[in-house]
Amino acid sequence: MSLDAATLPAMDVAGRADRVRAGFDGAEVDALLVTDLTNVRYLTGFTGSAGQLLVTPERLLLVTDGRYAVQAPDQVAAAGVAAEVEVAGSTALQDDVLSGALAAGARLGLEAESVTWAAQQRHTRPPWTAELVPTEGLVEAVREVKDDGEVARLARAAAIADEALARIGSLLDQRATETEVGFALDVEMRRLGADGVSFETIVASGPNGARPHHRPGDRTIVDGDLVVIDFGALVDGYHSDMTRTFLVGEGSDTQRRMLAVVTEAQAAGVAAVRAGAAAAEVDATCRAVIAEAGWEDAFTHGTGHGVGLVIHEDPRVSRVSTAMLSAGHVVTVEPGVYLPDHGGVRVEDTVLVTDEGCRPLTLAPKAPTPPAPLPPA
Amino acid sequence: MSLDAATLPAMDVAGRADRVRAGFDGAEVDALLVTDLTNVRYLTGFTGSAGQLLVTPERLLLVTDGRYAVQAPDQVAAAGVAAEVEVAGSTALQDDVLSGALAAGARLGLEAESVTWAAQQRHTRPPWTAELVPTEGLVEAVREVKDDGEVARLARAAAIADEALARIGSLLDQRATETEVGFALDVEMRRLGADGVSFETIVASGPNGARPHHRPGDRTIVDGDLVVIDFGALVDGYHSDMTRTFLVGEGSDTQRRMLAVVTEAQAAGVAAVRAGAAAAEVDATCRAVIAEAGWEDAFTHGTGHGVGLVIHEDPRVSRVSTAMLSAGHVVTVEPGVYLPDHGGVRVEDTVLVTDEGCRPLTLAPKAPTPPAPLPPA
Repeated sequence: MSLDAATLPAMDVAGRADRVRAGFDGAEVDALLVTDLTNVRYLTGFTGSAGQLLVTPERLLLVTDGRYAVQAPDQVAAAGVAAEVEVAGSTALQDDVLSGALAAGARLGLEAESVTWAAQQRHTRPPWTAELVPTEGLVEAVREVKDDGEVARLARAAAIADEALARIGSLLDQRATETEVGFALDVEMRRLGADGVSFETIVASGPNGARPHHRPGDRTIVDGDLVVIDFGALVDGYHSDMTRTFLVGEGSDTQRRMLAVVTEAQAAGVAAVRAGAAAAEVDATCRAVIAEAGWEDAFTHGTGHGVGLVIHEDPRVSRVSTAMLSAGHVVTVEPGVYLPDHGGVRVEDTVLVTDEGCRPLTLAPKAPTPPAPLPPA
Repeated sequence: MSLDAATLPAMDVAGRADRVRAGFDGAEVDALLVTDLTNVRYLTGFTGSAGQLLVTPERLLLVTDGRYAVQAPDQVAAAGVAAEVEVAGSTALQDDVLSGALAAGARLGLEAESVTWAAQQRHTRPPWTAELVPTEGLVEAVREVKDDGEVARLARAAAIADEALARIGSLLDQRATETEVGFALDVEMRRLGADGVSFETIVASGPNGARPHHRPGDRTIVDGDLVVIDFGALVDGYHSDMTRTFLVGEGSDTQRRMLAVVTEAQAAGVAAVRAGAAAAEVDATCRAVIAEAGWEDAFTHGTGHGVGLVIHEDPRVSRVSTAMLSAGHVVTVEPGVYLPDHGGVRVEDTVLVTDEGCRPLTLAPKAPTPPAPLPPA
């Protein structure tokens, strides 16, 4: 697979707003003010750090500040989106532009899960005259199903992570520190064409492995360590997410059993993924294997989450999730077992949901031991 | 200066909650629910991606989920903070724990600028019985003034950025692409001990320089380019922020004048910084120099912002800012001029406000040209 960024296919950005508008009736709104910047990017291609997008049945109006006076129209045009772009330097001026585009008394959806309480209160005062309606997930629901261009980016990010791990895996046998392993991974991903890392790389060795979200530290990786490596690459805004756990040296019976159980649980979870399955069913499948081994209480988190422009997005794959999986969803399956006296094991793939099952995007081998050191001479 | 992380002095984390409590009367609250994760980190040392902190006059109660069952108590103890830590796996269970710690009818502050509208609405329903009060900046105001341990981290991050730029500056004369320059900077910062980058490194050459927030692309840097490099290092959560603009080759009269004017404006702004000065006065000082040169409309953003655990925080240094600078504030001074036909120039330092003036933390030279290539043989 070529990792050259120029080979990525285009995304269908222009068609997205209509899919959001299709939710207006159900949400009982006449328009939606998109303030979540990821949603703004999704609908317009604009990647700036400040901007609001008003979606009405006829118009897309993007308002940003002077820093983005050139970039915003350029990016919107490059994405092929028919949005008007207005530049206004203060919140008050932006409010004037946006409220002026609405009929008096219009029902205006605000994204209740991202708009702040302070912003909501501001929208109850002049110049705003709209009736405010809290909406949840109008854009996020559309974002859940990835188009081919998005899948290509997610797959590219995953392929970069696979290759980076292959290049640095032998460090684990060479008394490197967690920090050194994490740094080596991050550099390789950038060399391979990633725009950055998907999130702060986790390298958790020995007792640190009992913390699912441990940050790499100065601990040297030694014989007998389980080493959890959870990391991903960022490509054109899209994230990859993969965890592998390696056992350095012989390890204990318990450690080998942890690896076997979690690997089995993860494979069972992946096998349960298909369009039409409940996300909670995938979680239950993983959890059953771990419970059977007696470690249910040591699996302290959900099984997975959607991945896209945000590293953790809908649908969630957990006990309490009500989501049904659909073709085009991209989710992780990442059960784990954490035992303070033995360390941690987590195994994670990111998979594309299909009608028949799923297509794993992360493909690095799940060998329990890192690449073997050279034999003694 | 040693760049070894082990030499960083401790921060005074334990004393911070009392400084926040000192604002309770003025805000007319009996307790504050801290949901902004940066504020949670500031008050407890906890760096996880999920957690809420209830601050009452007597208690600090940190509630997080199972992923952080080991990490949260460890980090709180390491920071020397007397907070109770409770683990609860769902929002409903967390609400039970938190609401149970409040007297019925207590006036509960919610951070209006970060709590979402959806969360605010949830707090109006059982089990919550508190009277909700929107608060703004209770923790942020305390965060504005940095203690010695924080200044040491900010200075370390700045020193790493200085050194990284010195190491890679000669790339600019070697027909590198923007992406290559940005990657080289990012790798050097990590090699020098940074935990990561402060924000996505900006390398904007030639016409791209007219976009203040351009992301590095495949454009090759050539003779006659102005190259804006805006970047920073991350050290123990603290950010650095510095911009330098170089002219590759001779350039035009206009380009040289842009560099001279912006460099002068920036120096004038830095000279205007001192405890007791209005932030707007610093902005006006920079703006006057640029206006004098006839480019007022080409300075399309504010002059600066606070820097700390967040890359852009209070106090803001802009025309509309009402902030007064105090000793211990750390702010940027970064005027710029952007002309589509000539490129962009921005010059930025991060400075520590003192009673007498300020101490620049970013110290890289402001030479208008990159390190000269070797002379022809």
